[in-house]
Order: sequence, then C-alpha cells, then structure tokens
Amino acid sequence: MKPLRIALLGCGNVGSALVELLAEPSSAKRVDTRAGVGFELVAIAVADLGKERSSAPWFPSELLTDDASSVVARSDVDLVVELMGGIEPAASLIETALRAGKPVITANKALLAERGPYLSALAASVGVDLNFEAAVAGAIPIVRTLRESLAGEDVVRVMGIVNGTTNYILSKMTSESRSYDEVLAEAQSLGLAERDPTADVEGYDAAAKASIMAGLAFGCEVPLSSVHREGITAVRSIDVAFAGRLGFAVKLLAIAERVGPTSISVRVHPAMVPLAHPLAQVAGAYNAVFVESTGAGSLMLYGQGAGGAPTASAVLGDLIDAARHLHAHTSAPAPIRSLPITATSMDALRSAFYLSLDAFDRPGVLASVASVFGEHRVSIRSMEQQGLGDEARLVFVTHVAAEADMAATIKALSELASVEAVGGVLRVIEDEGADG
Amino acid sequence: MKPLRIALLGCGNVGSALVELLAEPSSAKRVDTRAGVGFELVAIAVADLGKERSSAPWFPSELLTDDASSVVARSDVDLVVELMGGIEPAASLIETALRAGKPVITANKALLAERGPYLSALAASVGVDLNFEAAVAGAIPIVRTLRESLAGEDVVRVMGIVNGTTNYILSKMTSESRSYDEVLAEAQSLGLAERDPTADVEGYDAAAKASIMAGLAFGCEVPLSSVHREGITAVRSIDVAFAGRLGFAVKLLAIAERVGPTSISVRVHPAMVPLAHPLAQVAGAYNAVFVESTGAGSLMLYGQGAGGAPTASAVLGDLIDAARHLHAHTSAPAPIRSLPITATSMDALRSAFYLSLDAFDRPGVLASVASVFGEHRVSIRSMEQQGLGDEARLVFVTHVAAEADMAATIKALSELASVEAVGGVLRVIEDEGADG
Repeated sequence: MKPLRIALLGCGNVGSALVELLAEPSSAKRVDTRAGVGFELVAIAVADLGKERSSAPWFPSELLTDDASSVVARSDVDLVVELMGGIEPAASLIETALRAGKPVITANKALLAERGPYLSALAASVGVDLNFEAAVAGAIPIVRTLRESLAGEDVVRVMGIVNGTTNYILSKMTSESRSYDEVLAEAQSLGLAERDPTADVEGYDAAAKASIMAGLAFGCEVPLSSVHREGITAVRSIDVAFAGRLGFAVKLLAIAERVGPTSISVRVHPAMVPLAHPLAQVAGAYNAVFVESTGAGSLMLYGQGAGGAPTASAVLGDLIDAARHLHAHTSAPAPIRSLPITATSMDALRSAFYLSLDAFDRPGVLASVASVFGEHRVSIRSMEQQGLGDEARLVFVTHVAAEADMAATIKALSELASVEAVGGVLRVIEDEGADG
Repeated sequence: MKPLRIALLGCGNVGSALVELLAEPSSAKRVDTRAGVGFELVAIAVADLGKERSSAPWFPSELLTDDASSVVARSDVDLVVELMGGIEPAASLIETALRAGKPVITANKALLAERGPYLSALAASVGVDLNFEAAVAGAIPIVRTLRESLAGEDVVRVMGIVNGTTNYILSKMTSESRSYDEVLAEAQSLGLAERDPTADVEGYDAAAKASIMAGLAFGCEVPLSSVHREGITAVRSIDVAFAGRLGFAVKLLAIAERVGPTSISVRVHPAMVPLAHPLAQVAGAYNAVFVESTGAGSLMLYGQGAGGAPTASAVLGDLIDAARHLHAHTSAPAPIRSLPITATSMDALRSAFYLSLDAFDRPGVLASVASVFGEHRVSIRSMEQQGLGDEARLVFVTHVAAEADMAATIKALSELASVEAVGGVLRVIEDEGADG
C-alpha cells in the first residue's frame, strides 16, 4: 500500500508530539508496522516560521511553511490534521479540505462545539471522515465509544471530569486543605495552568467538551450557548473540607443528561460526588467520563486527558482509522443524526444541594432558616452546625429540589437578618448507577 | 436505506436481550433512529425448539428454527450474529457466513481464543467485518479501543479484571472476611456462579480473554496454550486479610505484557494490587481493563463485564458498525498484523511476591528462612510475624525476583524443618504507571 501523505496544520505541543510519532525513525517504523498503513508527512503549516523548533535530527524542518491555504489545496496531500486551534482560519481550512475529499482529523474542541454539526454533515455528504477523538479528554476514547460502541444505546447520562487543570486544583485543595488562589498560583508556576486561566477555571473548556459529548450521546445539535456553565473560582476550601467530612469529593463536572422525552440538560458546574462513586477517585490531572445507559449500564473511561503525547496518540488513532477508510475507498461516517432533542435551561433541572451559611448562633436562627427552606419547597436531608457564636456555620444537604426553588431559597436566606452570608452552594450527585 | 436482515444463532441470555433490543417496538424504533440504520431479524437458530421462550407479544417465535446451517446459507440474510458459544458448530457456521460475504458478529471468546487469527484473516481476505466486542468484558469497549484507538500505539501492558464471578468472590472474601468455599456457595445460590464453576474460578474464561486482548494489543497470534493460568481456588481468606493490612487488594488479573523486543508474557493469576491503583477499586461483578502505552499513558475502561443486557449492547454496537460498512459497500477491517512476537513461558517473568509461612516460633527460624531466600537470590522487602508459638505465621513481601528463583525458594522453604507449611503465595503488582 502506498503511504498516505499528511499535511499538519499547527505544530505546538500536540503537533510536535505527532511529528515525533510520524518522523522519528523507530517510532515511524513501529506505527507503520502496527497499523498496517504507511504515513508520510508532506507539510507542516505554522503561524511563525521564526519560532524555534525541535533540533532532533529527524525533525523535518524542510516541511515547515506559513502558507496553510496552499498546503490544504495541494493535490499530493491525502489527509489533513488540524491542530492549530481557534475558529478561523481553522474552520475555513477544514472546510476546504473536506470539500476536496480529504479526510480531516482535528482536536479543535472550540471549533467543534461551534460548528461541529455543520462540518460533520459536510464530511458525510462528501463521504470522507471527520475524526476528533483528541478534542475531548485527550487519550480517553470517549468519542469513539459514544459514536460507535453506544450508537444504538439509550444513553441516560454522560458525566465527566474533562478538564485536568481544574481537577488538579480541586484535588490539591482537598488533599492539602489549601485555598483556591494558593493552589492556582502553584499550578501556574508548574505550567499546569495558563497564565490567564479563564478558559479552564471558568469552565469554558469543559463546556465545549460537554457540548460535543452531548451531541454524540443524544444524537442532536447542542449549541455552546445552551450549555450552562459555572467554574470553580467560587469553590472555597472550607466547603471542600465539609464535603469530605460528609463523604463527598468536589469535582468540576461536565454533564449531559436526559431530562424528558425530547430534552436534555447540558451543563458544567462544580459538584459533590459521593466518595464511593468511581469519579470521586479520579485525582490530579487525570480525566474520566462516566456514561450511564439502559443496556450497557455504567461505563467509565479513565486516562490522561491532556498533554502532548496522550493527545497525539488520540490523533494517531483517528489517522489510522481514516487511512483504513481511505484505502477501502470509503468512509464509514456515522449517519448524521439530528434528532428533535433540545438542551433545556437549568430551570427544568432538579438536584440535591449542599449549602453552607455563616449564621449568628442565636436562639431561633435554625427555625427561621428552616422555614425559608420549607416555604420554597426545599426539603432538608441533613443539617450540621460547625463552630459557635459569631463563627457558627450551618451546613445543609437538601433532598432533590427544583433549581428555581433553590435559587429563591438562597435569595431569601441571604436576606435573613440572622444570616451573615450564604457561603458555598454545590450541587450533589446522587449515587445511582454506580454500585461498584 | 433498506433494513439489514439479521440471522441470530443462539438465543440464551445474551441472544434474548438482543432480540428484545431489535424486536420490542419502542426499542427497535430507538435503535433505528439513533443508529441511522434499520435492522430486521429474519431467523433465530436455536438448539432446542421445545424450550420455553419469552411470551412477550413482540417476541418473534415464528423466526425460531433448529436448522442453523440453512439459516447461514439463506440469500436473504445480510449479517450473522453468533451467540451460541462453543467451538463447533459455531466455527463452521461463522466460516460459511464469512465465505458468503456476510459480516459476522460474535461473542464467542473460546472460539476466538482458539481460531481468532484464522477467522480474522478469512474475514479480511473476503472483505467483510468480523466484530467481537462482546467477547471480552461485556459492555466495556476494550476490543474497539485496542483495535482502533491504540492501533499505532506502543502498548506496554494490558491488565484486566475480566471475570465478574471471581471478582465478586474475591470482593466478598475481602469485605466480609469469609472463606472461598463459603462465598462460592453463596454466589452459586445467587446465580452469580455456575453449578460447575471451573471455567471461572480456574481462570479458563479469563485466559481466553487474555489471549484475545494480547493479540489485539501486540498484533500477534497468542495461542490459548501459551497463556499461563492460575485460578483463585487456592486463595485463602487469611491472605486476603494480610494483603489488605499491607495496603493491597487481591484480584484475579488477566495480563499481557511486553517482556522483550519480540516477546510478551500472557497470563492469568491472582495478584495483590496496591489500593491506590484504579483496578483495586473495581468491586463486585464489575470488570475493568487497564492499558499502559508509551503515548497514551495509562487508560482504564470500567463497566459491566457480563450479563444479558450489557453484552447485547456490545453486540449492537458491533452490528451498527458492520451495518455502516455494509451500506458503504466495504469493510474497514484492521489489516492482519501477525508480527513476529511470541508469548514466552513464565520463567522469563520477574515479579514481586507475597508469601505467608506457617512456622514454628522458635529461635533461629527467621534466620534459616531468610537464608533460604538469600540462597535463591530473592531479596526480602518486608517481613511481619503474626501470632505466636505454634500459631506463628511469617508474612513476606519480596523485591522483584525471577519466577524460577521464587519457585525454588518455595520448594526449599517447604522442606525446612521449622516450616510447617507454605501458605499463600501471590504475585504483587507494582504501582507504576498509575499515579492517579
């Protein structure tokens, strides 16, 4: 079989790792032998030709160019790998490649969250592959699992830890009882968080992944704007500690869940996960996605969700898939499913909640607080007082309640004279479907 | 698209669950919508037509037949699903179907362990799919992950809990400090273990799965006879308890591991897994497979490894895959890799060991025992004495040692006058590659 000629767009962290896989002689030989397909890099488009690259003898500097448009149009390019990120020019380049009948592999989650359905439909209509395993949770094969293994399944819920930076921060806050600011600063100094950490800590990265996973799991379009998003900046170490004492770990979760016959809820927010749940054990920079469905039951995929080598490994798996299809003169894209299912607003959601209140320790405080809960139809499952006097803190866990009722409860509580402040508020994940 | 016509061979636990997925109206509609492919059951071959079947109104009793050979040969059958188990007539039926250009989906691990490479090569030469996700670990997508996601990876080790019955027994022995015999009897009464439990408890089932996983992970043929196999019948509750105190869980593991440039070790045996390792947390009837590779790092897939519905779900995923290929008038089978890699004997292996000795608590005993270890080049990492006098028990954990040296050590120890009996011997898994 003739080797397939690859054009690479973007050569950062992941791109460099992919170049090593394909160009370093012993690795290239292993890949070709293992995969039964030969690959040949023919162009590497980068933004800045002046940037210093690998000085390894195998690094193909002669392939570097800053003219991505010409690369995509070249007739001697069989496959395009897009690792440049961002919406434009990535979107136009991918579209050009697909229209020219070239399979595309991309790790661009932001682009997929915004234009995934359009690009997938285009790829299917042309009959070429658009593969994007690397866009969600690095090396973890969640895209392939949702697209193929569970293609006929009645998925009930997908729930994942899909951002390593925030999981690292929350894990450290838990294990070392340190504050968010302190751990964030440390993560930044270790290179585990960006200098501007907004995309991670405010949940934008996880929201893009939630949108992609939801679309695959439920067969519908999930605009990024319909994903409810809360980050971890408001998570306090005291609440992480209380959660631990109550038997929970605090995690930033990306959730896509069926809430009605034609509606799903897609959201990102910190939540308390029971320690017995497999997701609670996922620490540090690891990622994991937990999928519940009617037939398959509970599945969890766990692994390295970021980093050059793991992400490049996911790209390589996609490349081999596309190459096999190309050799068979076909693609086997999933039919475009665009079922009439829509992502609803948070108001439709019901959750159990954790809530901590700084309250003045005076007679009657609990009674007035409890009556606020009752007036808003929120039923209390447990209450604990921590500390005494002006340091008193009341920690509540509620039964499942409507989001709107809980919001009204919080508002009313914050207006009570005996309540100094509403502290942490966290949704609590019920431990159904995970008896392991 | 015209619905694809399926012949089902075998209608036991998994077969019935598949019939429900495809024939129960609301499920059938969901499958067709979600998958974008229509399916139609046209025949169900069973061994015993007289056996009582589902009385559900949707159950297609009119499709039952005891003539499997005719079914496979029918020109109006597009796809064959083999769930009858056993080597013959399953092997001949699958071969006939493949030669007639019909994709085959099977869950028959015993057959695949024995004739998988032959049948896969046949399927590839004809250009049709032979899919078998359901043969290993039920709903867990380990076959697809090894075949596709990690197709170009340098896999270092695959290590799985792939037998739910033994994991249930070991979990109960751990959590309830009960004996193997007692827990086995309970599992049998609950229907979680067969009346003749040999296939599970002696590791035959896990060995077949180890052979299949090893072949996929390393791209070579792994005859079942080259898989070293030890079951759990010799595991004593006292050793499970000691293991727990030392920070380990006892698990029956199926392991395929690179031990040299052209050699792998494939084996099934009980082992002590560090409690911090993700596999240690897999309890009850759940399965999990942990894969370590150079690029992707550590991956773990966790879920329901057995049962009608989860296994039927894996069959359905394979069916949809094959259907998509059939509609595209192709198959995209993995190229047949038959790399010159062979499974070596256990002698080549090196492991850390746990060993407990019933010894007479007399002066000098430890010295004579320690010198036996030393003479055989086995270095002791830790030693603990439990009990006193004639009840004394010495518990050792060794550093990594050669299998042959350890075997010689055990033999020599059992011949020592001061040693009443060599109790439990368990290999110890090192916690590399799992810093999560």
